Amino acid sequence: MAIRTHIGISMDGFVATPAGIPAWDAIPTFGPGTHGYDELMAETGAIVMGRSSFDQGFRDWLAGGWPWPDKQVYVLTSSPLPDDVPARVFASKGGPEGLVEQIRAARMERDVQVLGGPRTIRAFMAIGALDRLEMVILPVLLGTGIPLFDIKPVAYSAEAFAAWQRSSGSIDARQFNLERQRVYPDGSIEVVYRPA
Amino acid sequence: MAIRTHIGISMDGFVATPAGIPAWDAIPTFGPGTHGYDELMAETGAIVMGRSSFDQGFRDWLAGGWPWPDKQVYVLTSSPLPDDVPARVFASKGGPEGLVEQIRAARMERDVQVLGGPRTIRAFMAIGALDRLEMVILPVLLGTGIPLFDIKPVAYSAEAFAAWQRSSGSIDARQFNLERQRVYPDGSIEVVYRPA
Repeated sequence: MAIRTHIGISMDGFVATPAGIPAWDAIPTFGPGTHGYDELMAETGAIVMGRSSFDQGFRDWLAGGWPWPDKQVYVLTSSPLPDDVPARVFASKGGPEGLVEQIRAARMERDVQVLGGPRTIRAFMAIGALDRLEMVILPVLLGTGIPLFDIKPVAYSAEAFAAWQRSSGSIDARQFNLERQRVYPDGSIEVVYRPA
Repeated sequence: MAIRTHIGISMDGFVATPAGIPAWDAIPTFGPGTHGYDELMAETGAIVMGRSSFDQGFRDWLAGGWPWPDKQVYVLTSSPLPDDVPARVFASKGGPEGLVEQIRAARMERDVQVLGGPRTIRAFMAIGALDRLEMVILPVLLGTGIPLFDIKPVAYSAEAFAAWQRSSGSIDARQFNLERQRVYPDGSIEVVYRPA
């Protein structure tokens, strides 16, 4: 059992528009099962999502036919779920670490997909619980939106450069290993990383 | 003659640290000629850089042996260059559009590399003058630094989602074509895009 995410990301790092619409929707070639989704669905037995993602989708999913009838769904949340959630939908107990315990206790044979949003993906990365970071880099620039990573962009400053020259000169970076990659016909590139 | 950039970028979109140190320096496998640089140097007859990049490097380049003895170097700037620049180093005349005119007038056989920084690369993209955007995605997260693209990250908000639901629902995205890609042994991935 591996805990994985599989997320479409624009060339400039956004997984969703400012309104929360997935970056996938910016390319006309995305649809049910494309870009590795059929494989992902076959390989995963459970879904993890954050409370914002759940609240955004829940009523539509109920109305349109529950998308994961054969999977367990775990919601990372600190407040109770609505009374009408389907069977096999569970609230987390005790934050990300507690949720990982729940998942491991369920002894799933298939993998677990961390659906999102980005905060939930980052919460799993932060505790070392994300085994595979799968990004499909979409051939678009969005300019604005919700980034996957918790980034702090800055402008170049000659003062910062001068300070660095006087410093030890090391760069603080988190290393990853590239496990595999593939290209889709529309120019999207799937890259799969493991934490180093 | 194609106008190209070839830039190392972290998984989270930074081409340099906050001090302006290239993201390349975050991976131990980067060195002279690696990651496509030998090919790039053979294929290009001129270099374009912005004034900040020039000012950051100029004295070191002079002291250490001019890195581009066989190439023309164009600096995008609105103020005069120092008197002791080597021959074949030119200041731009008239901003990015003027610089593109100068480059075309020089009738170069080989390609032109837009070295950076990001503002200069974006200035060329903005006027449609960048024929090839070549990024080498390095398997590291930096968290902070100077991004390649002019990005405006936002947090998810239920209000923005509600507003979008009431709207026309289109997504504003700039499309690109993936021309080629390749993987280096250290897990860096080179992706080459053309504007669509």
